[in-house]
Amino acid sequence: MGMTGTMVAVLKPGPAPGCTVTRVAIPGIGPRDVLVRVKAASICGTDLHIVAWDKWAERRIRPPLVFGHEFCGEVVEVGAAVTHTEVGAFVSIEGHVADGTCYQCRTGNGHICENVSIIGVDRPGCFAEYVSVPETNVYPMDRGISLEVAAIQDPFGNAVHTTLSGEVTGLTVAVIGSGPIGCCAVAVAKAAGARNVFATDIRPYRLALAARMGADRTIDTTQEDAVAVILADTGGHGADVVLEMSGHPDGVRQAFKVLRRGGRASLLGIPSQPVTLDLAEDIIFKGATVYGINGRRMWQTWYQAQALLQSGKVDLSPLITHTFPLAEIDKGMDLLRKGEAAKIILYP
Amino acid sequence: MGMTGTMVAVLKPGPAPGCTVTRVAIPGIGPRDVLVRVKAASICGTDLHIVAWDKWAERRIRPPLVFGHEFCGEVVEVGAAVTHTEVGAFVSIEGHVADGTCYQCRTGNGHICENVSIIGVDRPGCFAEYVSVPETNVYPMDRGISLEVAAIQDPFGNAVHTTLSGEVTGLTVAVIGSGPIGCCAVAVAKAAGARNVFATDIRPYRLALAARMGADRTIDTTQEDAVAVILADTGGHGADVVLEMSGHPDGVRQAFKVLRRGGRASLLGIPSQPVTLDLAEDIIFKGATVYGINGRRMWQTWYQAQALLQSGKVDLSPLITHTFPLAEIDKGMDLLRKGEAAKIILYP
Amino acid sequence: MGMTGTMVAVLKPGPAPGCTVTRVAIPGIGPRDVLVRVKAASICGTDLHIVAWDKWAERRIRPPLVFGHEFCGEVVEVGAAVTHTEVGAFVSIEGHVADGTCYQCRTGNGHICENVSIIGVDRPGCFAEYVSVPETNVYPMDRGISLEVAAIQDPFGNAVHTTLSGEVTGLTVAVIGSGPIGCCAVAVAKAAGARNVFATDIRPYRLALAARMGADRTIDTTQEDAVAVILADTGGHGADVVLEMSGHPDGVRQAFKVLRRGGRASLLGIPSQPVTLDLAEDIIFKGATVYGINGRRMWQTWYQAQALLQSGKVDLSPLITHTFPLAEIDKGMDLLRKGEAAKIILYP
Amino acid sequence: MGMTGTMVAVLKPGPAPGCTVTRVAIPGIGPRDVLVRVKAASICGTDLHIVAWDKWAERRIRPPLVFGHEFCGEVVEVGAAVTHTEVGAFVSIEGHVADGTCYQCRTGNGHICENVSIIGVDRPGCFAEYVSVPETNVYPMDRGISLEVAAIQDPFGNAVHTTLSGEVTGLTVAVIGSGPIGCCAVAVAKAAGARNVFATDIRPYRLALAARMGADRTIDTTQEDAVAVILADTGGHGADVVLEMSGHPDGVRQAFKVLRRGGRASLLGIPSQPVTLDLAEDIIFKGATVYGINGRRMWQTWYQAQALLQSGKVDLSPLITHTFPLAEIDKGMDLLRKGEAAKIILYP
Repeated sequence: MGMTGTMVAVLKPGPAPGCTVTRVAIPGIGPRDVLVRVKAASICGTDLHIVAWDKWAERRIRPPLVFGHEFCGEVVEVGAAVTHTEVGAFVSIEGHVADGTCYQCRTGNGHICENVSIIGVDRPGCFAEYVSVPETNVYPMDRGISLEVAAIQDPFGNAVHTTLSGEVTGLTVAVIGSGPIGCCAVAVAKAAGARNVFATDIRPYRLALAARMGADRTIDTTQEDAVAVILADTGGHGADVVLEMSGHPDGVRQAFKVLRRGGRASLLGIPSQPVTLDLAEDIIFKGATVYGINGRRMWQTWYQAQALLQSGKVDLSPLITHTFPLAEIDKGMDLLRKGEAAKIILYP
Repeated sequence: MGMTGTMVAVLKPGPAPGCTVTRVAIPGIGPRDVLVRVKAASICGTDLHIVAWDKWAERRIRPPLVFGHEFCGEVVEVGAAVTHTEVGAFVSIEGHVADGTCYQCRTGNGHICENVSIIGVDRPGCFAEYVSVPETNVYPMDRGISLEVAAIQDPFGNAVHTTLSGEVTGLTVAVIGSGPIGCCAVAVAKAAGARNVFATDIRPYRLALAARMGADRTIDTTQEDAVAVILADTGGHGADVVLEMSGHPDGVRQAFKVLRRGGRASLLGIPSQPVTLDLAEDIIFKGATVYGINGRRMWQTWYQAQALLQSGKVDLSPLITHTFPLAEIDKGMDLLRKGEAAKIILYP
Repeated sequence: MGMTGTMVAVLKPGPAPGCTVTRVAIPGIGPRDVLVRVKAASICGTDLHIVAWDKWAERRIRPPLVFGHEFCGEVVEVGAAVTHTEVGAFVSIEGHVADGTCYQCRTGNGHICENVSIIGVDRPGCFAEYVSVPETNVYPMDRGISLEVAAIQDPFGNAVHTTLSGEVTGLTVAVIGSGPIGCCAVAVAKAAGARNVFATDIRPYRLALAARMGADRTIDTTQEDAVAVILADTGGHGADVVLEMSGHPDGVRQAFKVLRRGGRASLLGIPSQPVTLDLAEDIIFKGATVYGINGRRMWQTWYQAQALLQSGKVDLSPLITHTFPLAEIDKGMDLLRKGEAAKIILYP
Repeated sequence: MGMTGTMVAVLKPGPAPGCTVTRVAIPGIGPRDVLVRVKAASICGTDLHIVAWDKWAERRIRPPLVFGHEFCGEVVEVGAAVTHTEVGAFVSIEGHVADGTCYQCRTGNGHICENVSIIGVDRPGCFAEYVSVPETNVYPMDRGISLEVAAIQDPFGNAVHTTLSGEVTGLTVAVIGSGPIGCCAVAVAKAAGARNVFATDIRPYRLALAARMGADRTIDTTQEDAVAVILADTGGHGADVVLEMSGHPDGVRQAFKVLRRGGRASLLGIPSQPVTLDLAEDIIFKGATVYGINGRRMWQTWYQAQALLQSGKVDLSPLITHTFPLAEIDKGMDLLRKGEAAKIILYP
């Protein structure tokens, strides 16, 4: 009983740059797991780090590893103690496997589990034909949602979580960094009734996408001073809500400089190095509220995300810029490195 | 110094049904007050109660009284201790004059001041050429907003306060009662990203307006069972958010019956008699959150309201169904009694 | 494998008043369950309803049933798919078995699960030597907490959940109804820094306990008008926080009459019949916040409860008024019916 | 009409270190102001900066200036447009004069007014016999509270605001920096039901006071590693709540290192220079909530503060370590510079 045999997968074979498309064993499932046949996967910036084998990857990844963590698929097998998921279900997958037993998990905050294990980072991922995941990590998707959109619920969920971590309706929102998650955040903010939305980036390609997703004003920070523009456009008060999506120290500093007194800054972008802040002026005197955002709230974020899609309030299709067969993952990686793509879908 | 002479006004002359258009003295202003020349006023259901001289009016109103409380205008005179309002300002007026000294006022909750005095109810109102109001009660309006829309910020603010008293984005909202405030609430909920919005009423005229304001599903409760419809359309779960705008005991009971477990009910409609509720099933077992809503938060609600109008997220113009000179107020009252109008604007 | 044989238990044998102490089979456990050897159990008012076989019991209970749901014990056996609970663990048990799959469960609100099954009500309970419960329903207790106190975490948790559902520090709190949960709430409110705590009841026995648990002012509502006393003692403003623990229509009405404008009422007591309220004066004009409270938040409430006990902020021992062997449950029931006891502990 | 003549005051005469006790004119009052006769004042660290004439002082202070901002007194004169304050009232004074017209002021957040003017910094202060303040800045004190305690409501209010900016009951709290405000925060956290409270500092004098105010564990960071101690004592999880009161870059870094995943850090201490933080580990991955805290919420903080004092939950008397006549202010300054005092009271 149980699926056996091998499957095509993208493997990080050892502690060095690169990856390889090869065959590996189909993963087995435990009593509480389900086996998902991957229908569509998507490439995340994290995957580029793994392939490049940078310092973060060296510290975190234990090869050989099938990586990739953004995907949707169909349940093809369920473990003996699975209670409510059926073979044939169309699902998207929460990539953070929480332990379910720590304080955070037991108080509704499994997204910041102390012992989280991330699919495609700490355990086998989705650039493959099959993935084994705990039943608790699947979210049933409306079949009216396309495979491509269902595959990017992880980054879309990041944006939903970040944007809706406080009030938005009637407020001015600044999105710092217009990568795919930033672009999603623009759309979520508009759907939630933001008064107007600024979006910044250093790449015209991304700013064009941000505009298409609804940004009222895009700012190319290689050409304009984002702080000056946003302060000028808000009567000198700043933005009510700032969503930091760049992870760049300059972006973080801009985020706090454009934040209104009493405003809310939600930080999702991950700086690769320490950041120097003027805490007195930027946070304390302002009486600012700052949220660190990690993952997606399980499962509030997922319900919100699906509702925004089902109701037509958010349309993610402009972000699906390219599609490839899984075996041509290199092409997608190249496009991303050049900054000429948003979300790239792979079909195993 | 100060404006003197008389002005045209609608007066409740004594403790009996009816009202009269007559001339009264232009009101004087105290050192902290401003005199507003009324540009447009609107009729509220409360005004009908005052004219009809029902039990509530008999208990509350002390004639002779110029009534009316929904209006906008221009500041024409300011008191000696006024600090930041200038003659010529285009303003809408918060009708609740808070004392500024009670616990509620001193903790940011002036809308539920213990000693509130309401313009047009407890002190001279706006169905007149001029009104004297404390400087703290004027809100500067964007000149891009029409006189007619600026005149109905009080009921629109009720709707904004009620709808945004909790989360809305991605949620299902049921508006019970589609009078003008209910119709405004439909629009606010849609602007805030509600997944879908139900609106109920007993009058097709109002339901047609609710649909025009964005309701996804209208329910004529003389023809359909609102509870059955909403439960059926939500998979038996009920609405995440219920906004009670009818004030009718049946509406209140429907409100709680259609509320999802863990949902939020915000009650604005004022029942004229006690209501019998199944607290165990409707509130306690459900773990429901219930908010009593009164007035408008000063001034968060006003900022939100203006932002929704300025950004084009909400268009109130369909609710301005009729306009008359002030002296023809009777025509407006008649239309409202027949249920063939939403907001009626009067020009002094 | 697995424990077999019979055990002593208190059984509701059929659809009629009464109960019997008898031997039944030791329950089996599923792969995700644990078997708990009961060390101490406690009698709840619900158990009296089951024995009395009133209308609620007739509707809800399916005999034969071992009832009882407040208890602590030791894990003696674990199912095959149990992941983090070990034999020998000292645990108290959350009585609400949530399905883990509904919207509420998946958004951190399992305490209001749509498909809840309650131990000792919908499935075999704790007036027995052994109980089978899902692993997810056990909470590890600090061994420094006595068996008797560990056995009453369910009602204590009700009080913690109700009291801490909003701010308390520096505020005036009125506890309506001083049964065991009301007495716990008094202690929690004091521990959380309430400025002063009123406690009402109709029985001097309970009011004496409330005073012992820290109430600053007790009110025997057969002798004094609770509304008048609380308004007089709060300068006419009312209590900032009202905790309704009586479930009696008069108590509910008092609760709303003594609530300050802008205050918070948390309702835990379950009225057995509809209650007529003056919604306009009691909730709407006041701008009140009303929470329906059900069960205990899993597991925030449990962490809070244990912290209050471990830190010595709350001492529940005065509420443990009597202890009996399980077989003498009738004696305990009699005391409770006479109102001459708070919590009665049974040792199987 | 109005008090005239001169009074004794402590003056910063010009842009250089030092101060002088001299006679200046009694301040006049505007129509909305009241004149307060100072009964007791207290020295804040800010006053030391003004005397020392450091860079901050050079930038902010415009001499000649009577400084000092912590005080209580009696109202001896009221302006013509004053509405509810009477001569003879015993009052403590909120030092932040908000403009009442900016967005923050009009949305219940006057403590972060965009145009704040601080008594004793931007306008004449309290090291004098009389001070003129807007009526809106006086808070009536219970006459049962001593002059000395009434004089330190400003720093006590800082502590109340910081500590109660989130939940505390049943949680572990770390207070970083045990100056007078830190010591107040220890007391507030204990009063609010904190499970246990850590307090850090570099001075044994302050740590002894923190212990006296209720700290369960004090940490001399010149002798022990605060991060190691707090992590060890919390099972490696960290503190649920961290209150940063030191303003020192090392303190700020410790604050984030000891913060639990999902915890709350409230920052009050003002770093005099930029601080370098590991945002990824300290805020983002943790899903932390960070609040910048400025001043005192008007007037929620004041109500909370007074309730804690009136109910006996907090006793501030151990912090009143020295008293002097106003003319001997130098003695108090010396003691503070040596770190051998907490709050020093001056009597004009």
